[in-house]
Amino acid sequence: MSKKSVSQSKSVLSQVMLPSQANPGGKVHGGEIMKMMDTCGGVAAMRHAKMNVVTVKVDELEFFQPIKVGQLVICDAEVAFVGRTSMELKITVKVEDLMSDSPAIVALSAFFTYVALDIQGNPHSVPELVLETDEQREIFEVRKHRYLEKKSAFNSY
Amino acid sequence: MSKKSVSQSKSVLSQVMLPSQANPGGKVHGGEIMKMMDTCGGVAAMRHAKMNVVTVKVDELEFFQPIKVGQLVICDAEVAFVGRTSMELKITVKVEDLMSDSPAIVALSAFFTYVALDIQGNPHSVPELVLETDEQREIFEVRKHRYLEKKSAFNSY
Amino acid sequence: MSKKSVSQSKSVLSQVMLPSQANPGGKVHGGEIMKMMDTCGGVAAMRHAKMNVVTVKVDELEFFQPIKVGQLVICDAEVAFVGRTSMELKITVKVEDLMSDSPAIVALSAFFTYVALDIQGNPHSVPELVLETDEQREIFEVRKHRYLEKKSAFNSY
Amino acid sequence: MSKKSVSQSKSVLSQVMLPSQANPGGKVHGGEIMKMMDTCGGVAAMRHAKMNVVTVKVDELEFFQPIKVGQLVICDAEVAFVGRTSMELKITVKVEDLMSDSPAIVALSAFFTYVALDIQGNPHSVPELVLETDEQREIFEVRKHRYLEKKSAFNSY
Amino acid sequence: MSKKSVSQSKSVLSQVMLPSQANPGGKVHGGEIMKMMDTCGGVAAMRHAKMNVVTVKVDELEFFQPIKVGQLVICDAEVAFVGRTSMELKITVKVEDLMSDSPAIVALSAFFTYVALDIQGNPHSVPELVLETDEQREIFEVRKHRYLEKKSAFNSY
Amino acid sequence: MSKKSVSQSKSVLSQVMLPSQANPGGKVHGGEIMKMMDTCGGVAAMRHAKMNVVTVKVDELEFFQPIKVGQLVICDAEVAFVGRTSMELKITVKVEDLMSDSPAIVALSAFFTYVALDIQGNPHSVPELVLETDEQREIFEVRKHRYLEKKSAFNSY
Repeated sequence: MSKKSVSQSKSVLSQVMLPSQANPGGKVHGGEIMKMMDTCGGVAAMRHAKMNVVTVKVDELEFFQPIKVGQLVICDAEVAFVGRTSMELKITVKVEDLMSDSPAIVALSAFFTYVALDIQGNPHSVPELVLETDEQREIFEVRKHRYLEKKSAFNSY
Repeated sequence: MSKKSVSQSKSVLSQVMLPSQANPGGKVHGGEIMKMMDTCGGVAAMRHAKMNVVTVKVDELEFFQPIKVGQLVICDAEVAFVGRTSMELKITVKVEDLMSDSPAIVALSAFFTYVALDIQGNPHSVPELVLETDEQREIFEVRKHRYLEKKSAFNSY
Repeated sequence: MSKKSVSQSKSVLSQVMLPSQANPGGKVHGGEIMKMMDTCGGVAAMRHAKMNVVTVKVDELEFFQPIKVGQLVICDAEVAFVGRTSMELKITVKVEDLMSDSPAIVALSAFFTYVALDIQGNPHSVPELVLETDEQREIFEVRKHRYLEKKSAFNSY
Repeated sequence: MSKKSVSQSKSVLSQVMLPSQANPGGKVHGGEIMKMMDTCGGVAAMRHAKMNVVTVKVDELEFFQPIKVGQLVICDAEVAFVGRTSMELKITVKVEDLMSDSPAIVALSAFFTYVALDIQGNPHSVPELVLETDEQREIFEVRKHRYLEKKSAFNSY
Repeated sequence: MSKKSVSQSKSVLSQVMLPSQANPGGKVHGGEIMKMMDTCGGVAAMRHAKMNVVTVKVDELEFFQPIKVGQLVICDAEVAFVGRTSMELKITVKVEDLMSDSPAIVALSAFFTYVALDIQGNPHSVPELVLETDEQREIFEVRKHRYLEKKSAFNSY
Repeated sequence: MSKKSVSQSKSVLSQVMLPSQANPGGKVHGGEIMKMMDTCGGVAAMRHAKMNVVTVKVDELEFFQPIKVGQLVICDAEVAFVGRTSMELKITVKVEDLMSDSPAIVALSAFFTYVALDIQGNPHSVPELVLETDEQREIFEVRKHRYLEKKSAFNSY
């Protein structure tokens, strides 16, 4: 089985938030951002697996900061852990005020889990993950621990 | 402090999925459904708190079933647990094929957490939850346990 | 020919109105609501006929109340009358302010007519309608009267 | 009170139908066309009244022809009748296949009624209608008859 | 090879700008107007060629006037020049305030170039252009000059 | 007057193309890409000027490659030339097939011109451009030449 590093599939999506993405309160609709996160994680998962993928789980999604219309939203996704056919992606959303000099700040983060599918639509094994930094190794261990906990209770995917 | 039962704020949103909500694979974009869940939970949280609310967390969101364009999607939200200013909503998404006689099946479920905000935008206390069924009491205990675990580690909101 | 009651196909769609659905004046675009009514009637007609349907007529659509962004819109559709291949649906749209304690009020109502189509796209007969309440019987008579008036002048569909 | 002819406010909207406007069956969503009709009638009503207007009724809306993605849709609206504060617009939707040499054909028609509003949002009188052709006079008489029938039963707007 | 006059393919699209088309500053997003121009030019090019077309170039697109939500936008396209397989369209966008008595004013103009494609997707020759007015002849000469300048440097399409 | 390098304002937007962005032929609508280019150039112009900006011109926009639904589109913008109050941005759009191993290829490029506006909406001077590479210097000279040509004929903005 081939191996791939975290940096080989790391993906970034970025958009300026438009009025058509607002909620009734005038802030950006949380669902619009979740949609962007889902897509961004899917891009990284497809780059890791070079196969179709399907979202199966979202975990620990936290909103730290409301997002305003007109802000630049930068979403990045890194593979945090891989099972046999599943990939957990750490997804971070930053926002930047284009008129200010302040750096982008984290607005949301989450773990999204995807499963690789072959052309018949059946789960398919994915490359192992090559960890290159201490931060990657640390996140991997936490996610692996959580993955095994669940696996012992249910059937894993 | 006033009290409110689960059934007093239970909320349902329902929509037929359109081609404009598809992902590149032709199925309904997961992000569209998360957006609908976020809105549905927000409706129930506003009905419970009779105040503005903001989404702060999504947990245990699981996709059981892909959703097709043309299917009817029925999303319902029930308050599962309340903290002082926060409300955890159990959100369930069912899909129904209008041409078939099979009943609607569960496609996703998740817990979304909202915080009530007063008109200055500060967290505000919410009514206590009146539990009426055994299922409600059971879910409440699981969520409360999880809530206290996190609270002992961090500041609660 | 099989028979079906009004309640067997009664359908409800519900959505929170977003800023992307506003007209230039800031209220919800009437066309967005008509789109929702058309879909909701189509759901009920498909449930009655268990076949594809196509909208052929809209009648007596009245706007009683402007709808605001952020309001919950609840659209329900009931079969009011059936011809051989056509179904007339009474569609009612209610709006609810989530922050207030007032009940939902009627914002629009209309009759939409659909024709059932077989897989070749030809009109196909639909189940007869079982009327269960006096209100259903009354609406049926009014619609039947109107249907026969038109039928005597034109070819019916 | 000033007077205005039908041709002074006649309005045309035209658009090519996009995949984002499709219904699940792949044809253009009837609701998208109704939205375009509502806007087109509103344009003509604003041109007649030179004031804000609000849609109050839709009548005799008939679908003669399904509309396909990629077709050019041409919607035109003419004032058919005016009451004191209300205007009835005859709205006709034609479709044209850009690749064929056949002329545009009528796909839908309807009457939409608008009421003129002053800046306080109260109904306001509108210019009388100058009829210039026999067809205009004929439609006017039919709509006037219908208007007076309803007026005798209800309060007119 | 057949010939066609400018007026035989002249095309008009027109829409009222909605809040969902706004940029973060509240004016209409320039990109929405460019999208409308691209479509309008495509309609005229298809009418000239009676074939599929693809946009290959945009030139001299100038914004003279910001466009506001609620304004009527009228886009028209005229063939300005044709090469063997390419067509240059002069596209003009006017805006009109429905409440005022001022005439529509030009908000943008541009030249869009399209290439006709046969059903295999290969460039295909288009009818020659019959020029009927002095203005048409003048624009044709300017565009032809520019076309030949480029052709001498590169391969023409 | 302060100075800024090209790299200080270089901006990237990236999105996966969805079915709702398709044209009737099933490819991505050229207008959707132009909208993304306009936004991306606006981000870089705002970063250079730290002020509101407005698009005034698009030039030499060329489509090299159709874009498919499901492809990742990466748009980048670099300041190519600055006048006193105007900024010319070179905007390049690349597309990437997520399932293939081929690198992203250029699908479109263009020059977009923006003018910086102060809070009264009047044109305002922008920082001079610090050129750091030979490619930047070369593009700058070409654009400056073109800018001066036009300035000698018209009033510059």
